[in-house]
Amino acid sequence: LHSRDQSFHEPHAPEVIVSPNSTEEVSGVLRYANEQHIPVTPWGAGSSLEGNPIAVNGGIMMNFVNMAAIVDTRPDDFQVDVQPGVTRLELNKALSRYGLFFPPDPGANASIGGMIANNASGIKTIKYGATKDNVMRMEVVTANGEIIHVGTLARKDSSGYDLLHLFIGSEGTLGIVTQATLKLAPLPAKFSAVMAAFEDVPSAIRTVVDVVGAGLEPSALEFMGMETIRVLKRDKGLEAIDAPTILMEFNGSNDDAGLNEALEICKANGSINIQTAPGQEARNKLWSIRHGTYESLLREHPNKSQLHLDAAVPVSKYPELVAFTQSMLVEYELLGYIYGHAGDGNLHCNMIYEPDNHEQFQRCKTANARIVEKAISLGGTATGEHGVGIGKRHYIVEQHGAALDVMRQIKMTLDPNGILNPGKIFL
Amino acid sequence: LHSRDQSFHEPHAPEVIVSPNSTEEVSGVLRYANEQHIPVTPWGAGSSLEGNPIAVNGGIMMNFVNMAAIVDTRPDDFQVDVQPGVTRLELNKALSRYGLFFPPDPGANASIGGMIANNASGIKTIKYGATKDNVMRMEVVTANGEIIHVGTLARKDSSGYDLLHLFIGSEGTLGIVTQATLKLAPLPAKFSAVMAAFEDVPSAIRTVVDVVGAGLEPSALEFMGMETIRVLKRDKGLEAIDAPTILMEFNGSNDDAGLNEALEICKANGSINIQTAPGQEARNKLWSIRHGTYESLLREHPNKSQLHLDAAVPVSKYPELVAFTQSMLVEYELLGYIYGHAGDGNLHCNMIYEPDNHEQFQRCKTANARIVEKAISLGGTATGEHGVGIGKRHYIVEQHGAALDVMRQIKMTLDPNGILNPGKIFL
Repeated sequence: LHSRDQSFHEPHAPEVIVSPNSTEEVSGVLRYANEQHIPVTPWGAGSSLEGNPIAVNGGIMMNFVNMAAIVDTRPDDFQVDVQPGVTRLELNKALSRYGLFFPPDPGANASIGGMIANNASGIKTIKYGATKDNVMRMEVVTANGEIIHVGTLARKDSSGYDLLHLFIGSEGTLGIVTQATLKLAPLPAKFSAVMAAFEDVPSAIRTVVDVVGAGLEPSALEFMGMETIRVLKRDKGLEAIDAPTILMEFNGSNDDAGLNEALEICKANGSINIQTAPGQEARNKLWSIRHGTYESLLREHPNKSQLHLDAAVPVSKYPELVAFTQSMLVEYELLGYIYGHAGDGNLHCNMIYEPDNHEQFQRCKTANARIVEKAISLGGTATGEHGVGIGKRHYIVEQHGAALDVMRQIKMTLDPNGILNPGKIFL
Repeated sequence: LHSRDQSFHEPHAPEVIVSPNSTEEVSGVLRYANEQHIPVTPWGAGSSLEGNPIAVNGGIMMNFVNMAAIVDTRPDDFQVDVQPGVTRLELNKALSRYGLFFPPDPGANASIGGMIANNASGIKTIKYGATKDNVMRMEVVTANGEIIHVGTLARKDSSGYDLLHLFIGSEGTLGIVTQATLKLAPLPAKFSAVMAAFEDVPSAIRTVVDVVGAGLEPSALEFMGMETIRVLKRDKGLEAIDAPTILMEFNGSNDDAGLNEALEICKANGSINIQTAPGQEARNKLWSIRHGTYESLLREHPNKSQLHLDAAVPVSKYPELVAFTQSMLVEYELLGYIYGHAGDGNLHCNMIYEPDNHEQFQRCKTANARIVEKAISLGGTATGEHGVGIGKRHYIVEQHGAALDVMRQIKMTLDPNGILNPGKIFL
């Protein structure tokens, strides 16, 4: 159970699994491990997609099942203090009584500690930001067992180096988060949604740019390729036409909240089919179909495996990246389902392969590599939200250039014995 | 001209002022200075408020007057590439033709390089975030003259350590920014504003919490104390009553955009006077008065100096911090004008003193110290937006505890000879 995540990366078992009960216990384990040079790999919910929590060098796996409390909720400050083991859905269920929620939504029911480690984001990022934009303060145990606090409970801060963001997204390689204060948002009162199909991808993305440029402030702006639409029609009875499609959500305190203006923009960009979902019920129906994409793909391809591409580019380059991805699927004779968070320029493609077909799997990996390299060449990033883990270590060498040496220097300064989640981020 | 900023800190002249024309020249100067162990202090517009660019150890001042270009604007990506010397107002004037703007607004016409160095924010932060939330990628020259690139042009990124945010707000002590890609927002089509007076500060701040909690998404949420209101009435003919006052702005694509609901919330919290400014013209009139607070105070107290308090706390602690600030003004027999960005828990108090009255100036400094310490004890920060510079170095020792050692380790790793803006952030 603790040897692999949801990715295609090879499993590896740790020597021992430790489930600390307190920050002091985390500190004690790290102090000992640092003295003995034993690897320590933190484990949240195991839902990551790049091998991020696989104990490739063995050693100690640190499981946060016993540190999963919601410690303190302060609704007037829109803040909650949590331990790293609590999951996103548990947390949001508990917060709903205050009319609040923690916005980052990566789809999976990840642990908050894992979301912080990978800077998880998902479909709400265009309005609410990624995990890094929604954490205010953290308690962190460093490699030598020291307990430090980074960030502040105030919403503004210019008091020295931003260690908060240095630790967020560092995948447990610089320190282990033992408590976090999260920034909460009010649950919106009103929702609406629009689904619009286009002749081609450039028209769809032109619509994305125009909706944002008009100041409509959508809370989600998703792209679905034609093959993805077809599966959702078959599996979920989605009423749609087979074409590149944009799915937008608006929320807020207003009834309309951008819906009508968005419709005009879709028409102006030549949408060939528009469906509106005014009000929460209609919106929920549409979004549950989108949210279930992964499960629909599993049902469409029983007993097959999926490689999850994750890359991001400036929005204007999105059509080029989609076209390149389609050409790669053709060139390597692969079945792949393209979708993504178009408003953020974040593209996914779930490529299907037979678990035992090594040659097909290699074709998936090669196509994945070429698409990631293309994203970097377009000014983008090797990973929008899954993290570097094992799978993206090669690509960030090219992406970051000399800045990777600075990252390495920081790693060596904060974890000189290299005990924290070794084998990740750096080759 | 280059020996002091807008703060009360003692001036100090550099030995030489260098105005590089290119990144390569910045690199060359730094390489030489690093070899010779010569201090290098970057200079933007000189508008900072904590002595951040004062060359306390002499050496080289690096002025960015010759690197002030708007290099490339990409409206479809909501991005602009700029050199550090361009000022905020110059930039926003150039961007207006695209219907876009760079949202952080610290009031002063700061340079973009200076805003990045101090993580400047101001009145729009509640909706748009601080400078750190609106920068995507930077070219940075490190102490040894190496040119690196941090961040990405994609809106989402999980590819390794967040060096972008490590450099932002580091006040030129870790590296010198030579180019930055900024994230832009569409110029809102509609504006409205509400000004509401309350019997006491807690009712005013209850209104702040309720407006945010209702999901109204104000674009500014300001507090003005009674004395500040009185000056604005006298100097600018502001129509208001002498009471703690909240000033809210709403913007977006809607006509209403929260105005009516905000009015209901003000009434429910017992507002004793409400003025609405529906539409852009009425809103502009109100906001120009608020924006001119500093100038109004200068006219009210000609030939006097001002000490600018800057601290921030969780919003629920704001009334306590305001009450404590008032009590300090009484205890130290000082005239001070309280106002601030209440939606972010950021408090300012401009304390008036005679330039030649050393004893009175010391009372200002003592009151300032006690208010800052109070903010930290309430879970807040010694500086919400002015930076640490010279004036806040003592307080962040208490605020950050062991984390300050980690900051120091990073400083020593990236700038082992201590040439970059010495005498700032660290004691």
